[in-house]
Amino acid sequence: MKRLESTPKKDGYRMPGEFERHAGCYMIWPERPDNWRLGGKPAQRVFAQVANTIAKYEPMTMIVSKAQYENAKHWLNDEVRVVEMTNDDSWVRDCGATFVIDDKGGVRGVDWEFNAWGGLVDGLYFPWDSDDKIASKMCEIERVDSYRTKGFVLEGGSIHVDGEGTVMVTEECLLSEGRNPHMTKEEIGEKLCEYLNCEKVLWIPRGIYNDETNAHVDNMANFVRPGVVVLAWTDDQNDPQYERSLEAYNYLINETDAKGRKLEVHKLYTPKPILITKEESEGVDAVDGTLPRQEGDRLAASYANYYTGNGFIALPVFNDPNDQLAIDLLQKLYPDRKIEPIYAREILLGGGNIHCITQQLPKSGNN
Amino acid sequence: MKRLESTPKKDGYRMPGEFERHAGCYMIWPERPDNWRLGGKPAQRVFAQVANTIAKYEPMTMIVSKAQYENAKHWLNDEVRVVEMTNDDSWVRDCGATFVIDDKGGVRGVDWEFNAWGGLVDGLYFPWDSDDKIASKMCEIERVDSYRTKGFVLEGGSIHVDGEGTVMVTEECLLSEGRNPHMTKEEIGEKLCEYLNCEKVLWIPRGIYNDETNAHVDNMANFVRPGVVVLAWTDDQNDPQYERSLEAYNYLINETDAKGRKLEVHKLYTPKPILITKEESEGVDAVDGTLPRQEGDRLAASYANYYTGNGFIALPVFNDPNDQLAIDLLQKLYPDRKIEPIYAREILLGGGNIHCITQQLPKSGNN
Repeated sequence: MKRLESTPKKDGYRMPGEFERHAGCYMIWPERPDNWRLGGKPAQRVFAQVANTIAKYEPMTMIVSKAQYENAKHWLNDEVRVVEMTNDDSWVRDCGATFVIDDKGGVRGVDWEFNAWGGLVDGLYFPWDSDDKIASKMCEIERVDSYRTKGFVLEGGSIHVDGEGTVMVTEECLLSEGRNPHMTKEEIGEKLCEYLNCEKVLWIPRGIYNDETNAHVDNMANFVRPGVVVLAWTDDQNDPQYERSLEAYNYLINETDAKGRKLEVHKLYTPKPILITKEESEGVDAVDGTLPRQEGDRLAASYANYYTGNGFIALPVFNDPNDQLAIDLLQKLYPDRKIEPIYAREILLGGGNIHCITQQLPKSGNN
Repeated sequence: MKRLESTPKKDGYRMPGEFERHAGCYMIWPERPDNWRLGGKPAQRVFAQVANTIAKYEPMTMIVSKAQYENAKHWLNDEVRVVEMTNDDSWVRDCGATFVIDDKGGVRGVDWEFNAWGGLVDGLYFPWDSDDKIASKMCEIERVDSYRTKGFVLEGGSIHVDGEGTVMVTEECLLSEGRNPHMTKEEIGEKLCEYLNCEKVLWIPRGIYNDETNAHVDNMANFVRPGVVVLAWTDDQNDPQYERSLEAYNYLINETDAKGRKLEVHKLYTPKPILITKEESEGVDAVDGTLPRQEGDRLAASYANYYTGNGFIALPVFNDPNDQLAIDLLQKLYPDRKIEPIYAREILLGGGNIHCITQQLPKSGNN
């Protein structure tokens, strides 16, 4: 498949909202023992549950290493397509292709340069070369051409779009030292608009407290549809999350989107703080260069990290009283979609959640 | 994707003739240095030429190891889809899926048990576990269910079908000690008929002289269309090939196919004997358990080892006076297809030819 030298905006391609129609979904099977406890076995069960759930609604593809291929097949339903691909870890939202479409049935991939959330500055593991090739390999499998953003580092989890010209990010992440320190905020915004075909960037200042991705927007907020946003929230003024959510709320309600609309912002209450246990910490290999998982560390738990698919929402829950609040709010905001709650502590222990481990393939006219 | 416990015949699926419509073609990129001289570089050029040629006519997919992925992309045209897959060697005809179709748009795979042409009896390398998984991984990529022939060993190159109930094989290969020694000739014939949906087996006694596959039929003969066969031939009575071709000819002209037709048999003259040179031999790593490539060994050269694709024939040629005879005969037999001759000595040095390194994905109703 071709590497294109142009940009999606120049070619009339746009990233659609996640709530638009999908042709499928990708995930990557977790296994690295320096990130996933007990050789990845508990996480694998949950990843399988997520994939099997999504496969009820849209064509699902699981990327798996050679070593784990058969084991993954064992846990996945027959409906899930399993493809071999070398990987460094399992965050397809971040290392995978961001697909863009035109209005004539065309689909292409954006292959962002990937450096494991900060490269040699504050990246989470080394090396990351296999992950950086996932996007182009996905495009090959789908037989679609791709754009490579040479010299511009980004992860798919650090952006959300409304499909109508607006992209939402956090300054904390996109202006971080480990990604594109040679570029100004304005230059970064221009890049986003070229590759996603947007006109307006919403710059939320900060994301979720202690989020190792430098606070991806996908753990903090999401577009329900154009003009409507959910935002992770807490009323506890002693929680360091409080001022982060408050400043985001104040920013968003005073902004307009690319179409000039005021934003309707819904508060999505976070669960109570979740800390890594001694047992959980001890199940993870200690490896130089990989972020350690230490007892007592606070995890970046948020219900905002859900996946929006054809007719459903795959929602992380935490066995917390606020689970039901989240389910109720999202059911109200998405009246036509089934809410599929999945107990997701094992994903959270690895540093993200359901949105981080999924990547939609949007549906264009006849693809 | 599902593993089916039934058989294609029971489910109304059949293997179509290679001359029927294709939805695509698969190959595997060569690299093992104990089979391909000079680290596989000369063979890779020719494999790329074959793939790029086929891609002009039908969707082409190249299977490549992680190590060779980028190098393969470099040599392949953009039209060729490249997918990562661990492999032991590059003979997708033999280790890959044999696809079967119904008349309603359905496609399924037959995943034959593979043991590297003879297992521990007279197999060509050890181990072969990655090759044995290629077929099921191809089926996953194509999102088709598959039949696994547990306890029955076969390679796709050891069969040819006319798509109308006839399968053609060699006794030399199918009754060899290294494949299914626990089964009688009749039992083997029944298996073939179940998995290919045939009623009649044509048992050519032997194949090409010194063919390391125990003489696959695809190096010896082929169906041009139902009722019409080409057969590798020599008039040189001092060539050990002579009596092999003669007995095959006498067998075929006295047989009928599944529809009761007499066979029209065309003689396809082989090139003059081709021997491995000292330089060629010295370019191959010596590894215990792998068939050595020794100076002076005769190669199993045959024009019958061609690939029949949508609107074309990919024909191996050898810089031999008989190249033109083969081109002329096939052009006469396939008046609507373009003959694409490819200088194929480097493939031959690895133990096979163009048919051995290709595997068609047939087109069913609407697939």
